[in-house]
Amino acid sequence: MTSRTVDKTVAANPEQRRREEELTAKVVASFDGADNERLKLVLQSLTRHLHAFLREVRVTEEEWNTAIEFLTAAGHITDDRRQEFILLSDVFGASMQTITMNNEAEGEATEATVFGPFFVENSPRIDLGGDISGGAPGQPCWVEGTVTGLDGSPIPGARIEVWEADDDGFYDVQYTDNRVTGRAHLFTDELGRYSFWGLTPTPYPIPHDGPVGAMLAAAGRSPMRASHLHFMVTADRYRTLVTHIFVRGDALLHSDSVFGVKESLIKNFTEQPAGTPTPDGRELGDRPWARTRFDIVLAAAP
Amino acid sequence: MTSRTVDKTVAANPEQRRREEELTAKVVASFDGADNERLKLVLQSLTRHLHAFLREVRVTEEEWNTAIEFLTAAGHITDDRRQEFILLSDVFGASMQTITMNNEAEGEATEATVFGPFFVENSPRIDLGGDISGGAPGQPCWVEGTVTGLDGSPIPGARIEVWEADDDGFYDVQYTDNRVTGRAHLFTDELGRYSFWGLTPTPYPIPHDGPVGAMLAAAGRSPMRASHLHFMVTADRYRTLVTHIFVRGDALLHSDSVFGVKESLIKNFTEQPAGTPTPDGRELGDRPWARTRFDIVLAAAP
Ligand SMILES: [Fe+2]
Ligand SMILES: [Fe+2]
Repeated sequence: MTSRTVDKTVAANPEQRRREEELTAKVVASFDGADNERLKLVLQSLTRHLHAFLREVRVTEEEWNTAIEFLTAAGHITDDRRQEFILLSDVFGASMQTITMNNEAEGEATEATVFGPFFVENSPRIDLGGDISGGAPGQPCWVEGTVTGLDGSPIPGARIEVWEADDDGFYDVQYTDNRVTGRAHLFTDELGRYSFWGLTPTPYPIPHDGPVGAMLAAAGRSPMRASHLHFMVTADRYRTLVTHIFVRGDALLHSDSVFGVKESLIKNFTEQPAGTPTPDGRELGDRPWARTRFDIVLAAAP
Repeated sequence: MTSRTVDKTVAANPEQRRREEELTAKVVASFDGADNERLKLVLQSLTRHLHAFLREVRVTEEEWNTAIEFLTAAGHITDDRRQEFILLSDVFGASMQTITMNNEAEGEATEATVFGPFFVENSPRIDLGGDISGGAPGQPCWVEGTVTGLDGSPIPGARIEVWEADDDGFYDVQYTDNRVTGRAHLFTDELGRYSFWGLTPTPYPIPHDGPVGAMLAAAGRSPMRASHLHFMVTADRYRTLVTHIFVRGDALLHSDSVFGVKESLIKNFTEQPAGTPTPDGRELGDRPWARTRFDIVLAAAP
């Protein structure tokens, strides 16, 4: 006898295989009549991949019921303040893959990453060198850099939105007292330069008291996000950039729960002992601080 | 110049392709630490197929947001009486594929089909030849057959649960008056024979006032189920069979919204003019009736 490899994706039994393939083909064909060609393409592709998954793992009825119950629980915990389906998309890297595909690599253009749930419109405007912390607890961190095009030319007047969690790992909107902290917007100067005082980023978990958190626990995964500072940069005739910067050396860089980390987005956050003169002469007394540089390159608008 | 085929599943740009593939690999690897091998296999397969789908269709951020909103709406319409995620599974043929895989083809064993949401425990017991309608409106239909094993030997005492919609397309549990109609259970005799009076099956739609119905409408698909009569057959040492029989000639056989139809389950329902003598001498006055035969073959228990 010769040894045989078993293709797990299909049934060995030919009649069984015929039945499974015929069924998938029927479902695909059921969408043939869709007027909208894009919808047809998406639903037919989804059908093929969904069936390929079910057949590859030979899902049991009990497992499929568990999946239905999981989605039901995700639906029931989701409300105006909690979006479990986005978390689900995040922890499977689907959000990050969507972001990646929709921000096609172009030379040295800065890479995008996930938007996250904590951006808020109408953040306070600050001047260059201003402070975004709004009094939130944390280590002061000087952030500076430039915004340029792919050809290196500075982009004056680019709008930079920045937002981050406080030292306790919470964004302002996670408190119930309507505070506005850890967020602001500013504009680059005529040489495309920007700078501000923020807080040295700290890690925090995604909400993990629901079904997504239970799944992560069952799979031995952490809900923690690597420490990061959010940026959104917009300028006329350039592609909008939504990204983060991460802290080199952070132990969570390789297990970010939403796969937002890109090597190119990891920056040196250099610790400055208390008393080190600050770039703008700000007096920090006996507090140590940190500094980092993030030079941003925007692709042209599509 | 030679013409080139474009592989739509991957980005043409090599750096872009690298980023997308690296991301998928990272998500797959994130599940490496799962203690439960089956969970690990399922989540890693799901990741691969989900990412393959997203990359194949090059999903846009707007489309992905629409998908999240769709799932959210499905979660919010789902309650103790309405299960939109099962409907979703049904209309993508995922329920039917799961049933198909878990009832592997074995010779002439009767094919399984979807369970549906309308089975109820503790149905009335009827004797052979009894009436399951419970007074529900519809055309009387004599149903008879045998239950045998794969070798043709009769299975005495097999329990047969039957349930169906009334002439208006509703199951008893869809009314609010606690009626029990169109359902019963009976047992085969010593020769494996069974017979009962039911109603000639009529078509009905799956619930289509929610997001799944909206999707079907957008895709040009009907929510209607082909006319059918449900069976669940259990007997010691045999594989439980959950199936339907369908009505030959029904215009909906080729567009059943949940893909439950199998050629082998389509039966002749022969119309009998009013006055035709009935098999058991039942007096139906001026009502026409119908009759059908369904011989059931059970596979051995796994
Ligand atoms: Fe964040
Ligand atoms: Fe039904």
